[in-house]
Amino acid sequence: MTKESLLETYRRIGPYIHRTPVMTSETLDRMAGARLFFKCDNFQKMGAFKMRGAANAILCLSEEARKRGVATHSSGNFAQALALSAKLLGVKAYIIMPSNSPAVKKAAVRDYGGEIIECAPTLQAREDTLQAVVNRTGATFLHPYNQEEVILGQGTAALELLEDVAGLDFLIAPVGGGGLIGGTALAARFFSPQTKVIAAEPAGADDAWQSKQVGHIVPQTNPQTIADGLRTSLGDKTFPLIRDFVEKIIRVEEDEITSAMRLLMERMKLVVEPSAAVPLAAVLKERELFAGKRTGIILSGGNVDLKSLGVIFG
Amino acid sequence: MTKESLLETYRRIGPYIHRTPVMTSETLDRMAGARLFFKCDNFQKMGAFKMRGAANAILCLSEEARKRGVATHSSGNFAQALALSAKLLGVKAYIIMPSNSPAVKKAAVRDYGGEIIECAPTLQAREDTLQAVVNRTGATFLHPYNQEEVILGQGTAALELLEDVAGLDFLIAPVGGGGLIGGTALAARFFSPQTKVIAAEPAGADDAWQSKQVGHIVPQTNPQTIADGLRTSLGDKTFPLIRDFVEKIIRVEEDEITSAMRLLMERMKLVVEPSAAVPLAAVLKERELFAGKRTGIILSGGNVDLKSLGVIFG
Repeated sequence: MTKESLLETYRRIGPYIHRTPVMTSETLDRMAGARLFFKCDNFQKMGAFKMRGAANAILCLSEEARKRGVATHSSGNFAQALALSAKLLGVKAYIIMPSNSPAVKKAAVRDYGGEIIECAPTLQAREDTLQAVVNRTGATFLHPYNQEEVILGQGTAALELLEDVAGLDFLIAPVGGGGLIGGTALAARFFSPQTKVIAAEPAGADDAWQSKQVGHIVPQTNPQTIADGLRTSLGDKTFPLIRDFVEKIIRVEEDEITSAMRLLMERMKLVVEPSAAVPLAAVLKERELFAGKRTGIILSGGNVDLKSLGVIFG
Repeated sequence: MTKESLLETYRRIGPYIHRTPVMTSETLDRMAGARLFFKCDNFQKMGAFKMRGAANAILCLSEEARKRGVATHSSGNFAQALALSAKLLGVKAYIIMPSNSPAVKKAAVRDYGGEIIECAPTLQAREDTLQAVVNRTGATFLHPYNQEEVILGQGTAALELLEDVAGLDFLIAPVGGGGLIGGTALAARFFSPQTKVIAAEPAGADDAWQSKQVGHIVPQTNPQTIADGLRTSLGDKTFPLIRDFVEKIIRVEEDEITSAMRLLMERMKLVVEPSAAVPLAAVLKERELFAGKRTGIILSGGNVDLKSLGVIFG
């Protein structure tokens, strides 16, 4: 993964994604004591940055492979992103989802034209079902985050932000499987090496923090967080980027996440999913670190069930 | 109110307001069968277009008058807009609010530095209290909508939209007291006379529709709508603009308002207040009228109590 490959990625996916806006808020700047620049990938196609990596992964396949289709396992934003990217590119997408996935998530994948193959909600069933689909169809398996093409795609959000805002002291993004933070770290390293990259993670799912502490991947077991996009484990392609290029991982509590989500909705009028509020929660938590600094924050997505807002804010 | 006075207004308030972005959505275009351009005044300072008219009204006062302060009666967005504009301009703001106003609205006015004077929740008490404040302080009364400076200020939202998007067939805005739709109609008349201006109104508060039908102001009594910004009556400065320059008033039901609000939040990731969703509801209701047309929609504000979302969408 090189500077040139990241630029090529951006050129490749440009026609299929939105260049999302950067927004600012005097109120939040005052609260944080810093200059904050929010990269609004909640406005990305299908509502999350995952669209970037999914589009790139398909575009990097040969014509031949595209004809056979693509497959992944995900019940979250990557499932929808792969389904929509595949649709835009005329490729068939097979999405393996646990049978207990929420109906609304299955409906979203189907709306984007993805073919859902259900499996029992266990890791083994997921792997077996995926293998069976790949064997039967010849589809190429695309990993939601542990794949270079996906990581480079996710890195284009930071690339755009660094193009739009000069002189950032910090760049902060949430860490789940590590695709977004990994791509963000690469973008900063290639295009703004003086910018420090920080990851933000729920304390109730702090496998990345633990992994960085001990120097090897600690799998995420039994995650306890409202930030449903951040419950996954790191992969062997993403962990080294976090180990080597991420300055620090800040952990935040659940009430800090919902407070930050509330601020983004009330003060900035932005609908964000809980995972997307985790970096702002981190910035507000460690005020001394960010004091007076120009800080880019990646708002990763906006796919939240509005009904749940009553539960969150009620 | 002339073309030149509208341009002067924009130049005057420019330093004190945000030039808000115009956003689009392929999904909503598909649903409406039209090309929709959303003018996002939910991103305006203090979260609503009212900031434009309030800033202009204060800026048009003499130095002498500014020293004595400004006063208004409002429990809604104009109260906050006047308080914030006054603060930015170093002017004292007296806000008359009914004693039963929600605590969150009083807190917002106070946060912006406004001095709240409470009155009994009757029209008479409001008028008497306002008069007493004006007599005591020498403050200038500024009306939330029935005043030329305010109407011109609100018209700058449409002015910006017409500058950013060429060739609009329609411009649609909600109608409450008529300040926004009046200013919008003027902007279209001056800068894009081929653009037809449409007003959108809740069926449960359809005094503007009734007024236009009979040719004189029919006061709003007992409004029944979730769109709390649209419960007021027209004024003698706003009604003639609606009578003469607004092509049509479309009335929408409550479930159509909440559905449109849901679409704006789910599909566009925009936090909007119920009043701001009324024009989209109207466009989706009268599909034939807007079919294939380039339609500008003014998203009037985003000040919604997040707790209420549980009630709306739960």
